[in-house]
Amino acid sequence: MGNCLLASTSTIYGGTYLEYLSDALKDLFKDTDEIIFIPYARPSGISHDAYTSIAEAAFVKMGKTLRGIHSFENPLEAIKNAKGIFTGGGNSFVLVSELYAQNLMQPLQEAIRKGTPYLGTSAGSNIAGPSIRTSNDMPIVYPPSFATLAIVPFNINPHYLDPDPTSKHKGETRETRIKEFHKFNDLAVIGLREGSWVRVQDEQITLEGSNLTARIFEKDKMPYEIAATTILTGLK
Amino acid sequence: MGNCLLASTSTIYGGTYLEYLSDALKDLFKDTDEIIFIPYARPSGISHDAYTSIAEAAFVKMGKTLRGIHSFENPLEAIKNAKGIFTGGGNSFVLVSELYAQNLMQPLQEAIRKGTPYLGTSAGSNIAGPSIRTSNDMPIVYPPSFATLAIVPFNINPHYLDPDPTSKHKGETRETRIKEFHKFNDLAVIGLREGSWVRVQDEQITLEGSNLTARIFEKDKMPYEIAATTILTGLK
Repeated sequence: MGNCLLASTSTIYGGTYLEYLSDALKDLFKDTDEIIFIPYARPSGISHDAYTSIAEAAFVKMGKTLRGIHSFENPLEAIKNAKGIFTGGGNSFVLVSELYAQNLMQPLQEAIRKGTPYLGTSAGSNIAGPSIRTSNDMPIVYPPSFATLAIVPFNINPHYLDPDPTSKHKGETRETRIKEFHKFNDLAVIGLREGSWVRVQDEQITLEGSNLTARIFEKDKMPYEIAATTILTGLK
Repeated sequence: MGNCLLASTSTIYGGTYLEYLSDALKDLFKDTDEIIFIPYARPSGISHDAYTSIAEAAFVKMGKTLRGIHSFENPLEAIKNAKGIFTGGGNSFVLVSELYAQNLMQPLQEAIRKGTPYLGTSAGSNIAGPSIRTSNDMPIVYPPSFATLAIVPFNINPHYLDPDPTSKHKGETRETRIKEFHKFNDLAVIGLREGSWVRVQDEQITLEGSNLTARIFEKDKMPYEIAATTILTGLK
């Protein structure tokens, strides 16, 4: 299936960019010092260059180089030859639109499936499931499809947020939204809290990080919590 | 432009369905006792019949009858002949998908433009703008387009929520999301808090409801607040 770390968020409260993941990233990228960065999700609409600089600074601290996919003359070749790939968070609709515009969705899938180490945070994790149909993002652009990499056979809901029992707001809770998803879709969904990640190693998928539980939603079942280190292989 | 009431929400905290709007609805629908209901947004994935029953109960209290569009043999004719239309909230992606599937987007636009009184709540208000690109909903189905009725020339963000300064969550605030929208789109956006609505009467558009302010986002401008009764004509 691949060698992936799919994180709910790039940054946890009080921390710096990727800081809480640094040990896990040293392990993920232990066989390479060169990372290709996909900045297409453009958080707050920042430029590819500006976003790449942020990611680069974090990887330099780990003794690695990082280069934005947008700076390659042939991004397709860059993906094919990559020794490590990182897709940062931002807006899933913007990310998916650009991956399709650049014809990179399938090559990215193939690179990950053949074992290229892959890090995703937030939107970059969201696309590792079969679709962005459980994205939290605002649909600010219209992508040609919601279908994504399907590296893991379930959908991911990053930045999972528990309902606030004191809220007077009438907008839907995250749980309500995911339950609505299951009125129209069969796939399982993992609600991944900030600080958690999904680790894919060959055919094994594990929940990791911070001793947090994650919330699993399966169609026609009550949602339930799973502990860190739970093996997720088989969930779909 | 039409005769519309576009509400942020159907229900405010502590109230019952449409209760806080009842005086305004008596005015909107003063020339008709028969309302056609569009239940396609299916909140929590409920059936068209179940959703129509909820809306019907609220309208019966106002001395009006209400019938779901799905119960007509010819929904297109029902829209064309309607004396009043109400589109309820739920999931914008589901609503828009079904309006396109039934070929009702354009007929609905024409009916509203010719003056058929129209009530929208939440997703039903969202579609009165040019697109659902400022929806808060989860993209659980893939509609053939994000383009909607364009009755008002600006986009609506229903259930507008101010940032919580005490939050430790790293997901984007609503304001951040709307600012991202403006990196890719030019249209103005009105952040409509629960309890507010936009009233369209012929060529005039006004913010109404509860003495609440609304937050206006225009591309390349600082967001700003407007008071209830502010005339919005010209915003786009």
